Amino acid sequence: MVSRNKCMTLLPAGYLFPEVSKRRRTVEEEYPGADIISLGIGNTTEPLTRHITESLTRASAGLGTPAGYSGYGDEQGMSGLRAKIADRVYNGSVAPDEVFVSDGAKCDIGRLQLMFGRSQTIAVQDPSYPVYVDGSVIAGATGTYDIQRQQYRGVTYLRCSPENGFFPELKDAEKTDIIYFSSPNNPTGAAATRQELKGLVEYAKRNKSIIVYDAAYSEYIVEKGLPKSIYEIDGAKDVAIEVSSFSKFIGFTGVRLGWTVIPSKLKYDDGSQVIRDWNRVTTTVFNGASNIAQQGGLAALDDEGLTELRGTVSYYLGNAKIILKGLKAMGVESYGGVNAPYIWARFPGRRSWDIFDEILRKAYVVTTPGSGFGPAGEGFLRFSAFGHRKDVEEAVERLKKIKL
Amino acid sequence: MVSRNKCMTLLPAGYLFPEVSKRRRTVEEEYPGADIISLGIGNTTEPLTRHITESLTRASAGLGTPAGYSGYGDEQGMSGLRAKIADRVYNGSVAPDEVFVSDGAKCDIGRLQLMFGRSQTIAVQDPSYPVYVDGSVIAGATGTYDIQRQQYRGVTYLRCSPENGFFPELKDAEKTDIIYFSSPNNPTGAAATRQELKGLVEYAKRNKSIIVYDAAYSEYIVEKGLPKSIYEIDGAKDVAIEVSSFSKFIGFTGVRLGWTVIPSKLKYDDGSQVIRDWNRVTTTVFNGASNIAQQGGLAALDDEGLTELRGTVSYYLGNAKIILKGLKAMGVESYGGVNAPYIWARFPGRRSWDIFDEILRKAYVVTTPGSGFGPAGEGFLRFSAFGHRKDVEEAVERLKKIKL
Repeated sequence: MVSRNKCMTLLPAGYLFPEVSKRRRTVEEEYPGADIISLGIGNTTEPLTRHITESLTRASAGLGTPAGYSGYGDEQGMSGLRAKIADRVYNGSVAPDEVFVSDGAKCDIGRLQLMFGRSQTIAVQDPSYPVYVDGSVIAGATGTYDIQRQQYRGVTYLRCSPENGFFPELKDAEKTDIIYFSSPNNPTGAAATRQELKGLVEYAKRNKSIIVYDAAYSEYIVEKGLPKSIYEIDGAKDVAIEVSSFSKFIGFTGVRLGWTVIPSKLKYDDGSQVIRDWNRVTTTVFNGASNIAQQGGLAALDDEGLTELRGTVSYYLGNAKIILKGLKAMGVESYGGVNAPYIWARFPGRRSWDIFDEILRKAYVVTTPGSGFGPAGEGFLRFSAFGHRKDVEEAVERLKKIKL
Repeated sequence: MVSRNKCMTLLPAGYLFPEVSKRRRTVEEEYPGADIISLGIGNTTEPLTRHITESLTRASAGLGTPAGYSGYGDEQGMSGLRAKIADRVYNGSVAPDEVFVSDGAKCDIGRLQLMFGRSQTIAVQDPSYPVYVDGSVIAGATGTYDIQRQQYRGVTYLRCSPENGFFPELKDAEKTDIIYFSSPNNPTGAAATRQELKGLVEYAKRNKSIIVYDAAYSEYIVEKGLPKSIYEIDGAKDVAIEVSSFSKFIGFTGVRLGWTVIPSKLKYDDGSQVIRDWNRVTTTVFNGASNIAQQGGLAALDDEGLTELRGTVSYYLGNAKIILKGLKAMGVESYGGVNAPYIWARFPGRRSWDIFDEILRKAYVVTTPGSGFGPAGEGFLRFSAFGHRKDVEEAVERLKKIKL
């Protein structure tokens, strides 16, 4: 038969979130009556807001009429939506044709990795969202897994810890081609300052790297003065791609809609534009986001939609506040939760999966083990603020009872 | 700066369909009043049918309610939809967990290429849908482009012409790891017979190849006795993956919904299951099809939806009949158009792009140059039957006037 792709053999058996689900199911089977609350996967729970729901409903009904029907659109997205993202998210600082609409940030990151190919070296924040590393493994851009260090060979892990304020030390010696950077970070909830991002852009320029900046939680930034986009930093368009998503802003995790910005100024060392290759990848192995979802995205960027978006973000940030306050009251060293829907809690001397299991089995609360986000996450848990208010409150009460 | 992925440099500048659109726009600019009719890209034009539209509308409105809201679902698709596809499309001959729901066949083919990696050798029907080759180039599974032969080195082109009844001669000497095969074929419109597909499966078994069977047009097969799925052939589950889509059956080209079947019996030479790697790719770089689209898929497989589906297919096949009849009346040697929405027309001694341009400029009708589907397509044009009936009729009248 056919040989298995060697890159696939490098991946450990389980992706983080399926493993979390598996352990949850085991507990459900052992304790059939258990009322489990999930603060695990960052999955939105609140109904879509009125203006956005109406736009989806109208678009769906319209597909049944000659005037409202549409088939294939441009793979890059509806031109109206590209323009509106450029205008309303980036205040016109990027051009509409630099915006590529997609079915989500995770999918776009996979396609970016396909575009970059296997010859690029990569760096990631440690801890960070698993797809940066796992997707690079599949694309063949890493070496083998070092079980001892819990790291892939050929990947630079930029340690982000309470000790460095969750911003990595950037050493020129560790130059890599691609740097994945998310702010606010998933899982730590840390939002980088303007000064830090300036340093990142300068570092990328000096080392001739491309930054893949994941802004999927940018609308959760509420503190004044913190950049919401890498393009707020001078010169970023020479070195940075930005990936973002409607998932966490308006609850489109299931509807599927995101985007990627590739500045036309961003070039490879042969002088060719990255945007041209991205256009080729997009038109070849992608066929556009759902036309219904795109109408929802257009509505979300109306004045009314933006007001609703802020309400949605505010709801989940309210949850975050409750979790953060609860954990601090219990004396748990906790971070994030202010400009991000995630709280990053430290349990000194404990292993992430152990504390995960303890909380799941004693309090019936699902969290996410920090070690699943990289070796620097060992000893931490991520609490997600996505949930119904009453469930979040109940979860915090239960945590208090088991004396964390 | 960062080096460009060498694989990307191998691709010619333009993907087929964007080039077609570009030439169309040029004519629109030159002749502003021109009423151009497209029989080019296979883009559905008719409004969605009632039952399916209602399900999309209900799902959209439901997302605005606590009971109807859903966030992330399983990346592999809703379990109800996986079960329904297994039951209603495959009569239970595949298991629900062998069905992976996606945002479309083209996207799945891209992810399959990512999964297989760059070490596999590939074969394609010549002519065939461009993504099999172009996507393989991006994934690094081909050699360089041979301009003289209009072929990529390292790709086996299985010539399908009127002379061999559009079924390739399968030579054991040309063993490849992956064989892309579509039936009904896009662009030729040829549907393989049971005997031919038996030969294909036996060939794959003998040569230890995996068939990627593209069934995106299978519901267009109306002649009795022709298989609609590769799994109608004994032993196919040992050697074949099937990719399919709701795009052309119910007009979901813009809504985005497809699926891929990976039999659990299908294995690599190390004994590992292909389905396990596929599950890993799906969960890592994909996040599921839109929940709204999936509700539409569920409706399409209800009794009422299936009746509507047959109506939609029948409408476009009616168009195909008109085009085929018209071309034959003009004395143009034409194929397909009976079990497929494409007519494959031969223009001896002419180059595809020349005849494409002539028809575009003289009759304001967009077609697709056969050479865009592979070297064996040179001298042919593909006429798509996707269009409003009156436009199709008008296009045929115009073709008659310019004396093709």
